[in-house]
Amino acid sequence: MRGIEDYVPIVGRDEIEEIMYLAEYVEGAKVIHVNSTKFGGGVAEILKSLIPLANSIGLRAAWEVIEGDSYFFQITKAIHNALQGESSVELTPEMYRHYLEVNGINAEKLDLEGDVVVIHDPQPLPLVEHKRNGKWVWRCHIDMSEPNVGVWKLLRGFVEKYDLAVFTMERYIPKDFRGRFLIEYPCIDPLSDKNKPLSHTKILDVLERYDVDPDRPIIGQVARFDGWKNPLGAIKVYRSVKKKVEGVQLLLIGVFAHDDPEGEEWYRRTLDHANADRNIHVLTDNDGVGDLEVNALQRSLTVALQLSIREGFGLTVTEALWKGVPVVATKAGGIPLQVIDHVTGFLVDDLKNAAEKTEILIRRPWLARQFGRNGYEHVKNNFLITKALKNYLRMHIELVGLLKA
Amino acid sequence: MRGIEDYVPIVGRDEIEEIMYLAEYVEGAKVIHVNSTKFGGGVAEILKSLIPLANSIGLRAAWEVIEGDSYFFQITKAIHNALQGESSVELTPEMYRHYLEVNGINAEKLDLEGDVVVIHDPQPLPLVEHKRNGKWVWRCHIDMSEPNVGVWKLLRGFVEKYDLAVFTMERYIPKDFRGRFLIEYPCIDPLSDKNKPLSHTKILDVLERYDVDPDRPIIGQVARFDGWKNPLGAIKVYRSVKKKVEGVQLLLIGVFAHDDPEGEEWYRRTLDHANADRNIHVLTDNDGVGDLEVNALQRSLTVALQLSIREGFGLTVTEALWKGVPVVATKAGGIPLQVIDHVTGFLVDDLKNAAEKTEILIRRPWLARQFGRNGYEHVKNNFLITKALKNYLRMHIELVGLLKA
Repeated sequence: MRGIEDYVPIVGRDEIEEIMYLAEYVEGAKVIHVNSTKFGGGVAEILKSLIPLANSIGLRAAWEVIEGDSYFFQITKAIHNALQGESSVELTPEMYRHYLEVNGINAEKLDLEGDVVVIHDPQPLPLVEHKRNGKWVWRCHIDMSEPNVGVWKLLRGFVEKYDLAVFTMERYIPKDFRGRFLIEYPCIDPLSDKNKPLSHTKILDVLERYDVDPDRPIIGQVARFDGWKNPLGAIKVYRSVKKKVEGVQLLLIGVFAHDDPEGEEWYRRTLDHANADRNIHVLTDNDGVGDLEVNALQRSLTVALQLSIREGFGLTVTEALWKGVPVVATKAGGIPLQVIDHVTGFLVDDLKNAAEKTEILIRRPWLARQFGRNGYEHVKNNFLITKALKNYLRMHIELVGLLKA
Repeated sequence: MRGIEDYVPIVGRDEIEEIMYLAEYVEGAKVIHVNSTKFGGGVAEILKSLIPLANSIGLRAAWEVIEGDSYFFQITKAIHNALQGESSVELTPEMYRHYLEVNGINAEKLDLEGDVVVIHDPQPLPLVEHKRNGKWVWRCHIDMSEPNVGVWKLLRGFVEKYDLAVFTMERYIPKDFRGRFLIEYPCIDPLSDKNKPLSHTKILDVLERYDVDPDRPIIGQVARFDGWKNPLGAIKVYRSVKKKVEGVQLLLIGVFAHDDPEGEEWYRRTLDHANADRNIHVLTDNDGVGDLEVNALQRSLTVALQLSIREGFGLTVTEALWKGVPVVATKAGGIPLQVIDHVTGFLVDDLKNAAEKTEILIRRPWLARQFGRNGYEHVKNNFLITKALKNYLRMHIELVGLLKA
């Protein structure tokens, strides 16, 4: 189990001392995080690292996961899409009832008695109806700047019942939201299996296992199989780059999240689109791709793509930058916070542009190296878990202050 | 003028505090460094940064340069070669007399009244004959493991007159040397024009100015024009790589040192060997290549070569590694301290092997990235000027201790 001291060589002693100082104010406080899955997706990633780390500095942190049937997760996926702006989604009274019902059952089963309760994303949002004590925080990881009006109308009341709402960016907050809020970037754990340093023999092993040629350029996207991540766009970019750069290969790496029923469908569409091209590798957890393999495959990339049409924050971009991989990406969601155009990568407006910029970075290793170096520094300064822990301690102190007032 | 605080973001606060702590012990001590040139070569590089830095932490540090006619520098070049093992060199009585004479004249002109006097390399070695007070240190930057017996016999007495001799590596010390010694690696200044971060537009500007194509692989060696640096070997490696990697370009970058009359001759031999190949760029200070240009050109390299047959320490390797460039190098001198085989680069036994490894690193940007990252960390931990400053303060404290005893 990792402790806070393990991060000293990465972020420096000053940063860790500041965390220890803040931690004293909230020593022993019980904090409960609730989300909808233990595996897959950025939220589970963060909690997996944050909970033990919070415990290592003297909090009593726990992680609860809501349970539901597949119908429940279809509904929450629809809600997720609607809140991110899909106007065609309709939440029928039956769906809404089931959504509340499952949350009600979870409220009885889960331990929600903490000094601070942090509810992540829309799936467990209505749990706040069952709040008895403590301060409740809704941590929203998605872009709600232009939510589906009907769905937002149904859910807004829940959000505003929280003591605090935390968003990833200010412009993600619905315009008519009235309530206390904070902005907080998500983060990655530099010591997790997905991000820790790997030897090049390990990288070579993994490339061999998946029949990727280590001696030819490799481009690729790490993302869930989802229309908004635009895997078909990545294939188009690859086909365009291939005309100019001989032997280029494409990796499309995705892990199926348990709460995402659309994944299978998009996976199949991606395979169809790849059309059995031997230089396109579509790899998932079903192929044995775990965190270490994602780490190795991402480190093998000459250029990372992130062609998302809509994006929460884009932690896969953070992970690529941390590994020194230059990124060619669209301007969706939190990507422009990370991909600083011409500094840590290239921001593009269309697939044609994406192909051009990818080609430049393949041809110019010196430029890729500069971007990679800048990307690493940018993530180190802004998006590591130690930074998140610090902000999270500040939030606790503020909430405890509220409690006393 | 840079001060010690400027290095905090690079090496961390702990390292700087340790330096400040040591500096208190020797505050106000007068230290005089003497070498044979203000420009060109690793020693001048180090002193240019070290002297102001030493002053910024409370020492009174000065830098003196010996002067001589061209005959003197021919003699000292012969001595340099002889001490590095060239058995054919003969030091005639006339040469020896001139060598001592010029040093005698310099002893009268220079201010050599310090608490500590540090004499660098063989050119000003006999100055110790004129020592009046203070502690005298001979800092030897070359490999004297197998010196020319006749020349060493003539000079050994001078070396043993010093209070302390400092060598780059233990195995560089002549077997029959009897005297007090220390081992101290040389270092680079991460904030000097040669090593500081550069924007990629600056790199692109410099590449364009020298007609180097930024879109094709670039390999190259930064080194004085000198047989021991093997510039012709670099051309052979390039020709071999060219058969496998289309469009590869070679940069041979060297600055003429004022105390090195052989430079011109090796420069011409190199040009002859290049045989007007438009993809070989032989660039020197006469082409306007100053520190910033060396910095930019070195940052443009896909792979750095260092094919030296004999090497002191190889600061150009340190500089390449600091910039994240993977290095393919021979095992000469201090290179294996820096190029850790399969970690920060590849160590090779012959030119054929050098070409193979260079090709691998061109084809595998992911491997080049790993090596580059490791190289940067290795230099940061071992070969930066802050480390040298720390060791140098320890040496001063030890010498002052001797003085008191």
